[in-house]
Amino acid sequence: MLRALKDELSDETFIYFGDTARVPYGAKSAPVVKQFSLQNSLFLLKQEVKLIVVACNSASATALTFLQERLSLPVIGVIAPGVRAALDAVKDESPIGIIGTRATINSGAYQRELSRLKPGVKFEAKACPLFVHLVEEGLVEGEIAQKVVEYYLKDLKNAGIGALILGCTHYPLLQPAISAYLGSGVRIVDSAVSTARAVRAELEQRQMLNSKGQGLGKIFASDISAGFAQLAERFFGEKLPPVEKVEFEVADFWV
Amino acid sequence: MLRALKDELSDETFIYFGDTARVPYGAKSAPVVKQFSLQNSLFLLKQEVKLIVVACNSASATALTFLQERLSLPVIGVIAPGVRAALDAVKDESPIGIIGTRATINSGAYQRELSRLKPGVKFEAKACPLFVHLVEEGLVEGEIAQKVVEYYLKDLKNAGIGALILGCTHYPLLQPAISAYLGSGVRIVDSAVSTARAVRAELEQRQMLNSKGQGLGKIFASDISAGFAQLAERFFGEKLPPVEKVEFEVADFWV
Repeated sequence: MLRALKDELSDETFIYFGDTARVPYGAKSAPVVKQFSLQNSLFLLKQEVKLIVVACNSASATALTFLQERLSLPVIGVIAPGVRAALDAVKDESPIGIIGTRATINSGAYQRELSRLKPGVKFEAKACPLFVHLVEEGLVEGEIAQKVVEYYLKDLKNAGIGALILGCTHYPLLQPAISAYLGSGVRIVDSAVSTARAVRAELEQRQMLNSKGQGLGKIFASDISAGFAQLAERFFGEKLPPVEKVEFEVADFWV
Repeated sequence: MLRALKDELSDETFIYFGDTARVPYGAKSAPVVKQFSLQNSLFLLKQEVKLIVVACNSASATALTFLQERLSLPVIGVIAPGVRAALDAVKDESPIGIIGTRATINSGAYQRELSRLKPGVKFEAKACPLFVHLVEEGLVEGEIAQKVVEYYLKDLKNAGIGALILGCTHYPLLQPAISAYLGSGVRIVDSAVSTARAVRAELEQRQMLNSKGQGLGKIFASDISAGFAQLAERFFGEKLPPVEKVEFEVADFWV
């Protein structure tokens, strides 16, 4: 996502915050994802950002409206752009597949947006909780990855989907295994590029485009674990600036 | 663990707190696990407990001394009891296997305790990050579970281990698949019973044993997600009292 944003908007400055101390969000309930997302947004506000992209699908699916109601700056999620990209990719009547975490799929956010933009559209949604952990573990190919892909995607394949929305930031790293299983007839839709375009449109409309930003600004994370920098670079595709650790109050935490 | 404690100490009252909003701890760095564990302990102190059991292996492995230095009540971890159980189980010179999360294995806590109690003892340690997610997903048997078990345990099997310490609270649910792969010659060691005995010994020594407790007292959790009650009952083996959700301050969180 950061990569797509930087490519689309090379004259902006990007501040990234990854809540690595509390991920994954995909197995948490909607109230907790909302609270965490609001805390994370308030941290970005302190960095004086002009727009927030909720780059996590689980947070976009459950907390986007909650954030938009509470913050006075534009907040862009990944669901609507992903749905538009999927509708662009499928021109016949074949159903659209949606995969994501349990939080994302159970929220029904993708399903609602598909039906809103194309009433009567057919879709098949499936939560794939293990995918994120296969990616974190680097197991994106080989027998285990293939078996897990088959386990989760069998029903979507049988339903004859024409496109598959990768509704989780981790899933693009599994794309080769997913494509190998579904076959080349199924278009794989990643919302990153589509979201970056939505951000450009929002900034243009508000006349907030920058022409002298520095590209990648600061990278913050709430935890810096052993594999974090390595995983981040696999996602980003090149070296990242040093990650700054964000701290929180330890005392008087639980009410 | 709660089950083993209740069986060993039926006249005590147990207050359980599961930090379900922030689990899993196994992929987090030691500083974050320490901070989270201290916050959770301070919550239990507010419930006026007389002793704390750190029932999470990742927290025991990285934060036990940190907690003991900061709290004035006894704090018991699962590492030392697990090691004693393993040394009891292996009477020959075959190496002891240790499996756990990345946080647990990287901490070296099991390895140090084994060497301290039996200098020169041979062991083989292996982090198995996917195991906890297989259990959460209910995939504890079948082809995927078998492949993942083989993937992680191949080296331990080849090393000819005589016992295997299940160094994570989730792993006992995978025990059938693990035993099937390793064969009946390998003793499987779960630290729950051994830890419960250590708690009894500590309470006896301090003359703090209760004779009129109520068994299971309150169950607290920081998140109540869709599958939580079901998973908790699979661990506990019987119906649990209603779970009370613990809240935290949302504003002014990140420093």
